Amino acid sequence: MDITPKPIVRLAAELSKLPSIGPKSAMRLAYFIVDMQEFDVNSLSSSIYDVKQQIIHCSVCGNLTDIDPCVICSDSSREKDVICVVSHPGDIIAIEKTNGYKGQYHVLGGSISPIKGIGPDDINIDGLMSRIEGVSEIILATNTDVEGEATAVYVQRLLESKPVKVTRIAHGVPVGGNLEYTDEVTIIKAMENRQTL
Amino acid sequence: MDITPKPIVRLAAELSKLPSIGPKSAMRLAYFIVDMQEFDVNSLSSSIYDVKQQIIHCSVCGNLTDIDPCVICSDSSREKDVICVVSHPGDIIAIEKTNGYKGQYHVLGGSISPIKGIGPDDINIDGLMSRIEGVSEIILATNTDVEGEATAVYVQRLLESKPVKVTRIAHGVPVGGNLEYTDEVTIIKAMENRQTL
Repeated sequence: MDITPKPIVRLAAELSKLPSIGPKSAMRLAYFIVDMQEFDVNSLSSSIYDVKQQIIHCSVCGNLTDIDPCVICSDSSREKDVICVVSHPGDIIAIEKTNGYKGQYHVLGGSISPIKGIGPDDINIDGLMSRIEGVSEIILATNTDVEGEATAVYVQRLLESKPVKVTRIAHGVPVGGNLEYTDEVTIIKAMENRQTL
Repeated sequence: MDITPKPIVRLAAELSKLPSIGPKSAMRLAYFIVDMQEFDVNSLSSSIYDVKQQIIHCSVCGNLTDIDPCVICSDSSREKDVICVVSHPGDIIAIEKTNGYKGQYHVLGGSISPIKGIGPDDINIDGLMSRIEGVSEIILATNTDVEGEATAVYVQRLLESKPVKVTRIAHGVPVGGNLEYTDEVTIIKAMENRQTL
């Protein structure tokens, strides 16, 4: 006989769909939520519901936003002639944290991956092509894994015939990194891309 | 400028109130939830809301339940003259998993803890005292940490003058351990080796 009440079982099942939450953590969280104040529980519940209702993709760059166009696309102080192409909205957050880039973004919404069945038509490349008018540089900042590289190469080939400079973020040893523990391919890239001091 | 949309920030803040979810995991989960199918998101949201609406404490034993009395209290096949006293509803799940105990339960809803300002009146000891009529044995299965031991001693002293045998689960459970996370064989040993106080 299963003695755990059904609403708790159901909540644990829903929670365990989230990444890095296994069945045991999910059950622990479910019991924690039962013990929380009703106000906090309702607030958690509504914030989950609201995020799906209110968050949309920016019609210009594809970033996640609650206003359209998003705050970056509607910021008139940013450079208009540089577009940084990323795979996911989270990548924008990472780049913005550096405070070192003041241009536009374009979110592809994924990477080309034959294994996962994601082809060029499944990510927002058309949207990028429609934005290159008047743009002087496109920075390809997809991830440096196999899928990100394949995506960068694909986009670069599409843009070859267009009057726009296409660049790719540099490979190299991470700052603070230890050469001894860096993989060989990265070291080869870091040597190839060495800079005159 | 904070470029993360407000509904995502709010969701991450709510998620980070849960145990073992820090600000960074919360933000990652929030982005994951934004990417989930709307049906799944609404299902998660409603399961959180429902659990608080539907789960109550059993009026007999204090266990969490969606029907009153709970399935254990209303199970006529269980022994009526033995009550196992635990601190939290999760402890019942742990003991039930062993299939080694077929009596009643009583949930105190916490342990006596002067440091946390929890005294004997703050946990459901009165409810236990009102149930001892016709009971032949009370098994004290509070945790084996300091607070659980103090609670067991307190309850045992209250019951000294009553015509009921009071036993304590054996130290088969590791000292300082938490009943909810103890393996089943250890719990069976602890139940078998219970000692008369």
